[in-house]
Formats: sequence, C-alpha cells, structure tokens
Amino acid sequence: MDKRIYAVDVGGTSIKYGVFNQAGALIKDWSVTTDVGAGHEAILEGIAEVIKEDAQDLAHVFGVGLGFPGTVHDGIVIKAANLNWEQVDVKATLLKHLNNQVLIAVENDANLAALGEYTKNTVKSNALVMFTLGTGIGGGIVLDGKLWRGCHGLAAEVGHLDIGMFDFVCGCGKTSCFETVASATGIKRLATMYIDHKRFNTSIETVYSAKQIFDAAKTGDKLALHVIDKAALAIAKASRMMALVLNPETILIGGGVSEAGVFLIERIESHYHDLNTGIKIPLTFQAALLGNKAGLYGCFEVVKQNG
Amino acid sequence: MDKRIYAVDVGGTSIKYGVFNQAGALIKDWSVTTDVGAGHEAILEGIAEVIKEDAQDLAHVFGVGLGFPGTVHDGIVIKAANLNWEQVDVKATLLKHLNNQVLIAVENDANLAALGEYTKNTVKSNALVMFTLGTGIGGGIVLDGKLWRGCHGLAAEVGHLDIGMFDFVCGCGKTSCFETVASATGIKRLATMYIDHKRFNTSIETVYSAKQIFDAAKTGDKLALHVIDKAALAIAKASRMMALVLNPETILIGGGVSEAGVFLIERIESHYHDLNTGIKIPLTFQAALLGNKAGLYGCFEVVKQNG
Repeated sequence: MDKRIYAVDVGGTSIKYGVFNQAGALIKDWSVTTDVGAGHEAILEGIAEVIKEDAQDLAHVFGVGLGFPGTVHDGIVIKAANLNWEQVDVKATLLKHLNNQVLIAVENDANLAALGEYTKNTVKSNALVMFTLGTGIGGGIVLDGKLWRGCHGLAAEVGHLDIGMFDFVCGCGKTSCFETVASATGIKRLATMYIDHKRFNTSIETVYSAKQIFDAAKTGDKLALHVIDKAALAIAKASRMMALVLNPETILIGGGVSEAGVFLIERIESHYHDLNTGIKIPLTFQAALLGNKAGLYGCFEVVKQNG
Repeated sequence: MDKRIYAVDVGGTSIKYGVFNQAGALIKDWSVTTDVGAGHEAILEGIAEVIKEDAQDLAHVFGVGLGFPGTVHDGIVIKAANLNWEQVDVKATLLKHLNNQVLIAVENDANLAALGEYTKNTVKSNALVMFTLGTGIGGGIVLDGKLWRGCHGLAAEVGHLDIGMFDFVCGCGKTSCFETVASATGIKRLATMYIDHKRFNTSIETVYSAKQIFDAAKTGDKLALHVIDKAALAIAKASRMMALVLNPETILIGGGVSEAGVFLIERIESHYHDLNTGIKIPLTFQAALLGNKAGLYGCFEVVKQNG
C-alpha cells in the first residue's frame, strides 16, 4: 500500500491538516481551532490522536511534517509567541505518542510555505525567497531546492530588517522594522495614520482590516492606494537587501497582504526598478500560488527530503 | 606524480600566483604587477605562459583557479571595473591557451577569499560570511562548505547595503552604501570630515591612508578612535542584516581595514550586541587569518570542488 504523509500546520488560530500520498498529491485536508490554552502536551497528543485515527494503522504512515509559527531548531520549537510555547521538543513528543518508525520533520511555518511554493512553482529558480505578509512578516529561503534555515534556525527573519521608513515601534521593541509597515497590521496602522492626517480623499472612516483597504483601493480610493504604495516601497526595500545578499531569482509575495492583488505586485516592481541603480541585480516578483495550503505542501516536501 | 593546482588572483594592481599540491599545501607563491593597459587577451595569454613555463608539462596540471575583482558568472568576467573588463570569457580563453584537459574555475575574488578562509578556519561553521574591507567592500558567503554565488553571480554585494549612516555618495552613484563608511576609502573620508569639524583632539593634520588612522588609534588619538568606532558601527549594522537574512555562525573581517586590529573587532562586537535586541541572533566576529593569500587558498578549493 502507498504510505501516507501527514502535514500539520499549527497556527495560533487553527491547526491545518493535510494527507498526501507518496507522489505528493494532497488527498484531503481540513482544519480545527487551536486550543492554545490547553498547552503543548495536550495539543501534541491531540495531533498524534488525529493521525492515528485517520491512518488506522501507523504502518500506513511514512512521515509527519509539522510547521509552527516561531523559531524551530532540530525538532524543537524554541519559541512560538502566539502559542505561548518555549523549548517544546515536538519531535521527541510525537515520536513518543506515535512510534519511533515514523519520520518526523519540524519546521518554521514561513519556511515551509516557501518550500511548498517552490515545489509547486512552474519556474524552478535555483534561489527563491518568500515573504509571508500576515499579522507579522515571515520569510523563507529556498536555495538549490533546499530550505536555508541558518545556524540556529533563525534565517529569513526578514520582518525585522530595518527598512528606514516611518518610526513605528515593532512588537520586537525596535523601530523601522519591515513588518511595522508591510504586514496586515502595518497596512492598518498606515491607513489610520493617513486618515488622521486628512491629506487624502477617502471613503474610509474607521479602519477595521487590511482587506478593507485593499477593497477600497480597487475602487480607486486615493488613501488606500497611497497606503498600498507605501507597503510596496517597504517590500521593494527589503527585496533590494535580499538581492544584494543572496541574488535570488524570484521573490514570492504570500500571506493575507498578497490579496491586495496585481496592483501591489506592480507597485513593488516599479519601486524595485527605481531602487535597483548602481549595482543592478535582476529580480522578479510573483504572487504566491497556494494560499494557506502552501505550508501543507511544504510539510510534505520536508518529509520527502528527510526520508 | 602529484599533479599541481595553480591559483591566480588577479587584481587591478598585482597578479598573485600560487602553486598547490593536491593535498592543498601551498608550495610556492609570488606576484607580478598587473599591466592593465595591455588588455584582457594579453593578460590571459601571459597567465597561461606563466603556468606552462612553471609546470613544464601541462600533464602535471590538475587545474587552475582564477579570481577577479568583479562580477563573474559561468567562467565569464561580466564586469571588472578596476581592470576595464566587460564580458571576458576567461574560461574559454584559458582553455584555448592551455589545453582542454585542464580544469578551469573562475570566481569573484571576495568569494574566493571567503572560501579560502573557510577551508583554513579552525571553526568549521556551516555558514560563514566574510567582509573584505579594502578600497571598496566585497563579500563572500560560504554555506555548508560551498560558495553561494547567487543566480547571476551577484550574491554578497554587501558593499552596497544601505546602512543609513551619513550621506556620502558611493562610487555606484547611491548614498549610504556600507562601503562609503567602512572601506579604507570610507575611513579616510570620515577622518577628513572629523578633522574639518575640529570636534576631536588629534595629532593628524592631513589624511594619507587608512593605516595612518589605525596607527594613530593605537596611540590613543581621540579622532582616530572615533573614526574606527563609526566604521565598527557600520560593520555591525551590515552584520545585523546578514544575521536576519542568513543567520551565519561567523562574520570574518578581512582586507586592509582588518589591520585596525583587535580594537576594531571589539567595537564591532559591542555595537552588534547593542543592535541585537528584539529578535536576538547569535553571531561571532573573527579577524581573517590568511591576509592577502586567502584568495589563493580559495582558488585551490574551488578547483578541488569542481574536480
């Protein structure tokens, strides 16, 4: 029988599950609410139960790939703020609940999203960087088809690059971090600031969500367009840094902010063109393809690479 | 007979030669003045003649590694400003002058210096970044023992990272580039600026060289110490970017500016410590070990890896 690979993308709000065959086809997927208050032991035991019940027999399970929103190193979640986890040995815990024959791979979720997009991307560039623009900004780097994790699992912490724009205080305590401007939180912050400035005509009175700004931009709302343009400039600045350091082929734009659509990508390209003087480094930008399933595909791939 | 590997590090001032045995021992090395005006055909033919004469028989030559101060991709020097070269197919030209059995590897010189230092470094980190602080600033990235060159040979163009300090115009036409502050040229520029400001007591009247500033700093000259501190801050800022993107184990400081000695490394460590808040990323700093022979060792290694 074709063995199965389980993908588990654990977020602060929901846990997404996916079941793949060994050829990489996603047979089914579903999600459940994360009971953060239950603590890591209960959550991991719950994941093991779901897998055992779905697989019926652990002999049918080739491996399990898991993604977490935080720093991961050698199977251990070093820190995941949204889950209130620190130093949780996910690999050892799951091996205990499952069975030592099952291959377990544990990764940062933004890394997995980048890897998932890489495997499904039609352009097989030898270096791809993905920015996941959500509540914060995560990053993933795929070089020659493999994740680059860094020496302590801390590579691609791109949300905290200093882009020298505005002076908003980041959740990390510093100012000018990339994610203070170009995350969904940053978009809301910028829109609120420009409404207070009363410099732009706008139909927006109170800011509820980043999506509201994207919808307004699609109707030509001047303030919303200006906000997206500033986010695009921040993304172009971070991309210029990635180009000077890594010279990747492509930057993929994923996460909720990528729903701003083709206008966002065009503005990023335009700002990158303006910044790309002196040492000129070619770089293409693409919207991510897999939406919130990118992490599941990454889970599959990382198990396959470890198997 | 043990075959030989020839290393040729071509600079705008001199061409350094090294001869290695296959075990990696540098048997001999020497240098000659670069006759830039002679043009690329004559220079490359000259290099081939030197190798043929030294080896006596090309059957004794396992390979030749060559480094150039510019962008290199697939054996071609795309651009090397100090040599006035553009689109010079070094690999094809040398294969023509030597013999198609000889393995030829062509690389950027800062990449080779990083690779050379990596092979001789006692700490075998799985990710090392080297900053070569000379007239400009070059960079090299070694990941899992291999050079990371980027998709167009443009990775590690670190000299042009925007560090947001001062507003000096760079040779590339932009402002705030890392190399406008922390290169030997930057050190001289800073010293001249602070002399004009008359803010510091100093024994320096006219700035001739970066070395003059390092020598003055060693005698406790306040202005010279302040200049080196600013250069150290610039290096720490660029290092923080490298840490957020790549999470390397070590940053190696090489090139003429590294002659500022242990005071420079200590100031870099201190500034990095101050910048390393929020997302904390461990990083060690070391002075490069091989001086101007790093490139030769890199030439050997890149031939070995290609062989």
